[in-house]
Amino acid sequence: MAAEIVNPRSDSESRNGHTEQGNGAEPLDSFDPAFALHRGGKMAVQATVPIRDKDDLSLAYTPGVAKVCSAIAEQPDLVHDYTWKSQVVAVVTDGTAVLGLGDIGPEASLPVMEGKAILFKQFGGVDAVPIALNCTDVDEIVETVVRLAPSFGGVNLEDISAPRCFEIEKRLQERLDIPVFHDDQHGTAVVSLAALRNAARLSGRTLGELRAVISGAGAAGVAIAKMLIEAGIGDVAVADRKGVVSRDREDLTPIKAELASFTNRAGLSGSLESALAGADVFIGVSGGTVPEPAVASMAEGAFVFAMANPDPEVHPEVAHKYAAVVATGRSDFPNQINNVLAFPGIFAGALQVRASRITEGMKLAAAEALASVVGDDLAADYVIPSPFDERVAPAVTAAVAAAARAEGVARR
Amino acid sequence: MAAEIVNPRSDSESRNGHTEQGNGAEPLDSFDPAFALHRGGKMAVQATVPIRDKDDLSLAYTPGVAKVCSAIAEQPDLVHDYTWKSQVVAVVTDGTAVLGLGDIGPEASLPVMEGKAILFKQFGGVDAVPIALNCTDVDEIVETVVRLAPSFGGVNLEDISAPRCFEIEKRLQERLDIPVFHDDQHGTAVVSLAALRNAARLSGRTLGELRAVISGAGAAGVAIAKMLIEAGIGDVAVADRKGVVSRDREDLTPIKAELASFTNRAGLSGSLESALAGADVFIGVSGGTVPEPAVASMAEGAFVFAMANPDPEVHPEVAHKYAAVVATGRSDFPNQINNVLAFPGIFAGALQVRASRITEGMKLAAAEALASVVGDDLAADYVIPSPFDERVAPAVTAAVAAAARAEGVARR
Repeated sequence: MAAEIVNPRSDSESRNGHTEQGNGAEPLDSFDPAFALHRGGKMAVQATVPIRDKDDLSLAYTPGVAKVCSAIAEQPDLVHDYTWKSQVVAVVTDGTAVLGLGDIGPEASLPVMEGKAILFKQFGGVDAVPIALNCTDVDEIVETVVRLAPSFGGVNLEDISAPRCFEIEKRLQERLDIPVFHDDQHGTAVVSLAALRNAARLSGRTLGELRAVISGAGAAGVAIAKMLIEAGIGDVAVADRKGVVSRDREDLTPIKAELASFTNRAGLSGSLESALAGADVFIGVSGGTVPEPAVASMAEGAFVFAMANPDPEVHPEVAHKYAAVVATGRSDFPNQINNVLAFPGIFAGALQVRASRITEGMKLAAAEALASVVGDDLAADYVIPSPFDERVAPAVTAAVAAAARAEGVARR
Repeated sequence: MAAEIVNPRSDSESRNGHTEQGNGAEPLDSFDPAFALHRGGKMAVQATVPIRDKDDLSLAYTPGVAKVCSAIAEQPDLVHDYTWKSQVVAVVTDGTAVLGLGDIGPEASLPVMEGKAILFKQFGGVDAVPIALNCTDVDEIVETVVRLAPSFGGVNLEDISAPRCFEIEKRLQERLDIPVFHDDQHGTAVVSLAALRNAARLSGRTLGELRAVISGAGAAGVAIAKMLIEAGIGDVAVADRKGVVSRDREDLTPIKAELASFTNRAGLSGSLESALAGADVFIGVSGGTVPEPAVASMAEGAFVFAMANPDPEVHPEVAHKYAAVVATGRSDFPNQINNVLAFPGIFAGALQVRASRITEGMKLAAAEALASVVGDDLAADYVIPSPFDERVAPAVTAAVAAAARAEGVARR
């Protein structure tokens, strides 16, 4: 599963073999190892067939390639067999919601998109190409992605700000016959659900017995709420900066009004803190903070998933005083809820069976498979596997492929 | 210079490690080795940095990557230092003029674009990504490429039909600050000029003493005519299917009218065959045929470059009866005029100095460098080096980089 690393570059030499010239950048490299590691980028393209001599060239390029082109022109499905299309995902962003940095533009988002691409490869064996667009209009992004789609087997939308991200994904899913997946929404939701399933199992409860509160009504919060309901959660309320999203609020965007229509059956209103009183689950995807008394007011045996990065909504040490299970988005605490547990296997599974889209059933299957990797080792500090657990991607891949077949969206 | 080949795949196993299922494609693989070679595509993405553990992940992805993104947001030029942008070229097509196959659409063009991409890597050390667009409107192609340009260091336009290719290239060059290069035009022109320079040297003549006739007024023919004039050819006439392009013709497209304004100083008109009488050079990029008597009518010591593939306009054995130097586009005859001699080094040189565009001077320098590789071994059957001559790409790269500096378009 692990991809081979080639061409490691020294700090002073770039990919093309020429020495860097003084351009004022070196101080950054010595200032921080992240800069040194990023010099020259983090990825490359490689040939998977040899071109050693004229015979190789005449097979891989003209004249041999013409027969392959003609065959695809006659029988379009052959593009999946004889090109890399079905193995390569476009990682598409407009740079408007990058990490916690916000709207930093397409060029500045590229290090994240390259990182995503190499995680696809490393963990899922999936090739991925960063495509950072210099347009932010919904129509323009949709048209652009539709036009470049023939080259790709799937589209991973990344770091596009809400609420545009919802419409862009929906319209692309309607227009394209390949998977379109906004990872900030669904990847986060899948991993959160997996962790919650295991936390519930540890406490001997079903999801139906739990009431959850989500802090954050952006891409991740909306998707987690939808997925928890799909999975059968007892109740879930979502809070934005103005408090709990409820039907009686008159300031809701269309997305939040929709959210109000299917969440918060208890009819809560008011602050996030008040909603937490007696709640079983807190899921933080807001970047805000939750005061200790609010955590203390949660139900006995609560689960606190404080996933804001780098600063969790409540510090794990504080959360542990009141909660039975604590998870964060950070690698330096137990139970890291990290999207890399989901997206490589989800796309690998979808591509393996040439799924036309990624259904709710495929995402639920991914969460089940991810949760099941933990198995009998389940413990309060182990409700979710490590990103480096080599069982994860194969389990998710197989479950997603099987679910795609079961749901009738597989094409092989 | 040669890229490492990894992940060679057997015919029965695809990239993701699962066995191919019966889909009717296997007969093609056993029918022709080109199909077996193309199974699963010809390229992959690889990480160039390690992701072995949490520490690696925290440098290459969150939280480490955030510092790199912030630095680029503050100082945009750093994108060239800390991402792969300056090392990766988009190979963009709309699939309208693929090889000799014509308008076969974007998916069917992908094997050629992948081939191009791996030639970029193999011969120039340049990463390249196929982008096959499912739109053919000039405005749509231009807007799409402008929008995805932030991710790339250059754009190689490929197999886009004339006359749209001319306007698309021109408008993209005006809109973008990275090199935009239609290889079917300029790559062919650079290699043709290199071969012609050496043929002239072999015969002790200057370009100014030569009168050339080009068959074909498409992308390649127009670009070759322009470049020969830049290089100081005595005269050049271009013929399309209706005969020599001349100022007195009333059926000319705007491109051909422009061509008529600066070619054919002799004021020829009539057929290609009549224009060849007494001509010193024939350059065929038409796919048509030239009858033996027309070749016989050329001047003493003529040069015949019959580059149509797979069938040269005149068979080399026939041409040799009358011409001093014969070249084709085929690898099974001497003097193969192949674009792979030019585009990898041209882009490698342009990217090395972060050129904002590829100027006429850079193309002329590429042709000079390519011609000079032949050196003292110059002979009638060796006016152009082999694509596998390892001196070619470094020579072209260095010459193009130096020319970019001299012309003031280098940015480092």
